[in-house]
Amino acid sequence: MSRWTFYTAPATCALATHIALCEAQADYALVRLDFTNAQQRSADFLAINPKGRVPALATPQGVLTETPALLSFVARSHPQAGLLPLDDAWALGQVDELHSYLASTMHVAHAHKFRGARWADLPESHADMRAKVPQTMAACAQHLEAQLNAQCSDGPWVLGPRYSVADAYLFTIASWLEGDGVDTQALPRLLAHRAQMQSRPAVQRALAESAVR
Amino acid sequence: MSRWTFYTAPATCALATHIALCEAQADYALVRLDFTNAQQRSADFLAINPKGRVPALATPQGVLTETPALLSFVARSHPQAGLLPLDDAWALGQVDELHSYLASTMHVAHAHKFRGARWADLPESHADMRAKVPQTMAACAQHLEAQLNAQCSDGPWVLGPRYSVADAYLFTIASWLEGDGVDTQALPRLLAHRAQMQSRPAVQRALAESAVR
Repeated sequence: MSRWTFYTAPATCALATHIALCEAQADYALVRLDFTNAQQRSADFLAINPKGRVPALATPQGVLTETPALLSFVARSHPQAGLLPLDDAWALGQVDELHSYLASTMHVAHAHKFRGARWADLPESHADMRAKVPQTMAACAQHLEAQLNAQCSDGPWVLGPRYSVADAYLFTIASWLEGDGVDTQALPRLLAHRAQMQSRPAVQRALAESAVR
Repeated sequence: MSRWTFYTAPATCALATHIALCEAQADYALVRLDFTNAQQRSADFLAINPKGRVPALATPQGVLTETPALLSFVARSHPQAGLLPLDDAWALGQVDELHSYLASTMHVAHAHKFRGARWADLPESHADMRAKVPQTMAACAQHLEAQLNAQCSDGPWVLGPRYSVADAYLFTIASWLEGDGVDTQALPRLLAHRAQMQSRPAVQRALAESAVR
């Protein structure tokens, strides 16, 4: 029996944690929820994660949720994989800063396309929110492009020469840009990062395991 | 000269990091921005934090932003203060999970009251968002109340008997509930947590230093 059970769904931010699990060669069983049938709001899943969201990771200690928490937990639980600079407070701060930006600014901007009912009731408001997503996501992408240019002159990754779980999260959220109407041709650093990520076996495995069949 | 410069503004989420700095007895100089004059979008401040937000912490290594990143960075930089269980991956995961929820769900819910222009353009949409805030913030508060009941049977803090930076963040965001139209009388654990926090000298110092004069 696997040590952990990982709950995911295709084309969600759970891909980031899934990549981290693959990079760490973690011992996990995979459960793919069917969002088209609202399985995330089933009684069975709400008993696991009352928030009704993925990712969620069931461990012997309990269930952990929230992408930034899971990425750091997977990395700390598998130090031999070197997925975080665990002894460098400043580098960890930079990773945490990016994780927080991706979760609370960029993912939130994206969510206003299809999840507007979280924050407003009228269909007209939802349409207004949806119309603004290309603009807000482009602004987020430009911020990331500038960050990569400023911080990563010495390597392809968020931490420069050193790969980390932050790359899995950046890759996941940035993969939504074209679908959100952003012209990525003006974002060469993000495109180069995507290409580097796609060449990693762990990324290929996570994409294959999570894809709709 | 102080080692760090901390940029804050009254009645913002920067209070959480401010409390952490006081708890750690960190060596910092305080800069209070005047949001009523949009000082956070001045050229001077955008040169420090291009996102135009607080909190921001200028250090010899660079500028760090985002509350979850700053709370962990302050704690890791002052291990003698014991503000995080640095050797316990599971407890750190629980702290990170709460930080992420507060930043990307609860603070975001609150922001739809006055910052709707981030996500929609029409005044009608902003009014619709504003009207929903009491409902979304109440749902978040009930989730936190349930979490505290489930996790903290053995003490007043997020980690039970052990105080951590997570308490500073919970206190800060939960202090917005009444202003957002939530009846806190139905939330005894959150109210008890607030009272415990208000009795801490570090909290009193941060509130005094950041208050409008």
